[in-house]
Amino acid sequence: MERLRAISFGQGRPIELLDQTELPSAEVYRQVGTVAELREAIQSLRVRGAPLLGVTAAAGMALAAETLGTTDAALRAACDEIAGARPTAVELQSMAHRALRAALAVAPDGRVAALWAFAQALAEAREAEDDALARHGAALFGPGTTILTHCNTGTLATGALGTALGVVAQVHADGNLARCFADETRPLLQGARLTMWELQRRGIPATLLPDGAAASLLATGQVTAVITGADRIAMNGDAANKVGTAGLAILAQHFGVPLYIAAPLTTFDPATPSGVAIPIEQRAASEVTGYRGLEWAPAGSHVYNPAFDVTGAGLITAFITERGLLRPPFGRSVAGTLGSASPILGVD
Amino acid sequence: MERLRAISFGQGRPIELLDQTELPSAEVYRQVGTVAELREAIQSLRVRGAPLLGVTAAAGMALAAETLGTTDAALRAACDEIAGARPTAVELQSMAHRALRAALAVAPDGRVAALWAFAQALAEAREAEDDALARHGAALFGPGTTILTHCNTGTLATGALGTALGVVAQVHADGNLARCFADETRPLLQGARLTMWELQRRGIPATLLPDGAAASLLATGQVTAVITGADRIAMNGDAANKVGTAGLAILAQHFGVPLYIAAPLTTFDPATPSGVAIPIEQRAASEVTGYRGLEWAPAGSHVYNPAFDVTGAGLITAFITERGLLRPPFGRSVAGTLGSASPILGVD
Repeated sequence: MERLRAISFGQGRPIELLDQTELPSAEVYRQVGTVAELREAIQSLRVRGAPLLGVTAAAGMALAAETLGTTDAALRAACDEIAGARPTAVELQSMAHRALRAALAVAPDGRVAALWAFAQALAEAREAEDDALARHGAALFGPGTTILTHCNTGTLATGALGTALGVVAQVHADGNLARCFADETRPLLQGARLTMWELQRRGIPATLLPDGAAASLLATGQVTAVITGADRIAMNGDAANKVGTAGLAILAQHFGVPLYIAAPLTTFDPATPSGVAIPIEQRAASEVTGYRGLEWAPAGSHVYNPAFDVTGAGLITAFITERGLLRPPFGRSVAGTLGSASPILGVD
Repeated sequence: MERLRAISFGQGRPIELLDQTELPSAEVYRQVGTVAELREAIQSLRVRGAPLLGVTAAAGMALAAETLGTTDAALRAACDEIAGARPTAVELQSMAHRALRAALAVAPDGRVAALWAFAQALAEAREAEDDALARHGAALFGPGTTILTHCNTGTLATGALGTALGVVAQVHADGNLARCFADETRPLLQGARLTMWELQRRGIPATLLPDGAAASLLATGQVTAVITGADRIAMNGDAANKVGTAGLAILAQHFGVPLYIAAPLTTFDPATPSGVAIPIEQRAASEVTGYRGLEWAPAGSHVYNPAFDVTGAGLITAFITERGLLRPPFGRSVAGTLGSASPILGVD
């Protein structure tokens, strides 16, 4: 299976990032040689996706040690700089801080090598995790499978194979995929822009649809399963994901199509008992009133633009994780599996 | 209640059309003085909406008589020209042909006056019909009502008060409307562009949302009812409408929110026993891969873009018509009411 490349790095050279703001019209790799450039790339969404931001943060700490020095003070300042680039990206912050701790644990002259090794180990752990998740998911499906997905959950989100889109890629590699349908995912169009690009690059038969056409598609009976990712999963199985997921889950149930949520165990939050405790970010009206300078709604329109919604546990057939499937009752299956999360990726 | 104006006309002057392609950024009225200009306006979607196209066709026939002469041959040619401007717009065709028959029934020197009178009578019948429908719908609601709607069903669609949006306007006029939520309605964004413009022009508190955010909104419990229009309704109550309506209907049922479909009796098709018999037009990929020259999906993307979907009768709480509400079982209520349709508006 071809590995798409969202980031690459190594000691003594700049970090190379696939600029996601240029996709899908151009495939541009940006050389990032300083912490300031890295911060700009994160803030401009040239690199995005929680797991990929974690790897980016770790590589950024190594770059900081190489370019700004390895004193405690220099590394702490770099950590603040990187972790603060986007305030709500938990993975960005947690991996910057983990890298910092790993560096402070060794003598200054070993820190550059230790940080590159940490970033490399993190990237490899992500690859192993996504690969395992994809294999567990793909085992669910036989020949002629058609999958409907939402938003972007591939290499551009995790830096490795991806979660829901990783399952799609594995089903395709197994020769079992007839077609992947991708919701365009308004307002930011990650499905149209990013998922369609990844599917096309992998040679996977793919069809784009407006979010509002999902019911029409499911009614045709040609969709084997709906698979999405998740941003945070509560201990009872309620799952927060990109807005539109909850509606898709209700439609899937209505039409008798199974809904799987593909997410690594780090997505489950022991501090969140149920979905009602998950805060939902409201985003700018401008994301809905137009797109990149082209405005189509009347000036001054009031907008409801939640970034995420919460899919009730009762709508979810199973979670696909790197340790296998979690099935209802989720209260028991989630709690019973969380202890087995990978040490490098695990929650702080 | 303020009357918005999508078309105005009269003997001895050009037809004036509100150019819907310029909305919402500019309110431009176009003077249409010839049949060729009218055809261009219809084909470019400067004027759209099935009932409004019917009125436009009738006015166009009067304009033809005035500018091209009143011989049988001239009027038949004009009728072909107007009716053929958009091949699938039934109302455009049926009203052009009705106007032709009305003209041929009188002597040539009375035809110009007869055609303007026909167009005027049609426009007035539409106004009476929409007003009656809106009053029947508004009677369902008390203070603090919040309505979620999809696509555009207002003055820009019917030339009169509108159907679903007419009900919204009447609930507002009655002092009972807290807010109207409008789905943006991808891919053509009629909700964002046209419905938001109408709501703003009427001073109605309005909120725009991406289609995918409807489940999130309904989950909050703040929506009193979902009201949409319909393009064609089968005799068993299955209703074809703008893509996204069927999904919204399933969500409404899931969250226990009533779904009303507001449509004049002419929308019910005695020749269509159920929704499976309704053909669904697939539209161009370019509507989904971008918007007005701004492309966001990869070149060559395969697209699923049905213009309409079919909402099963079992999801519909009631139809709001100009003769009152039709409730289940629809087989009986629809058949029992169809005989009472207005003669000028009735099906051929």
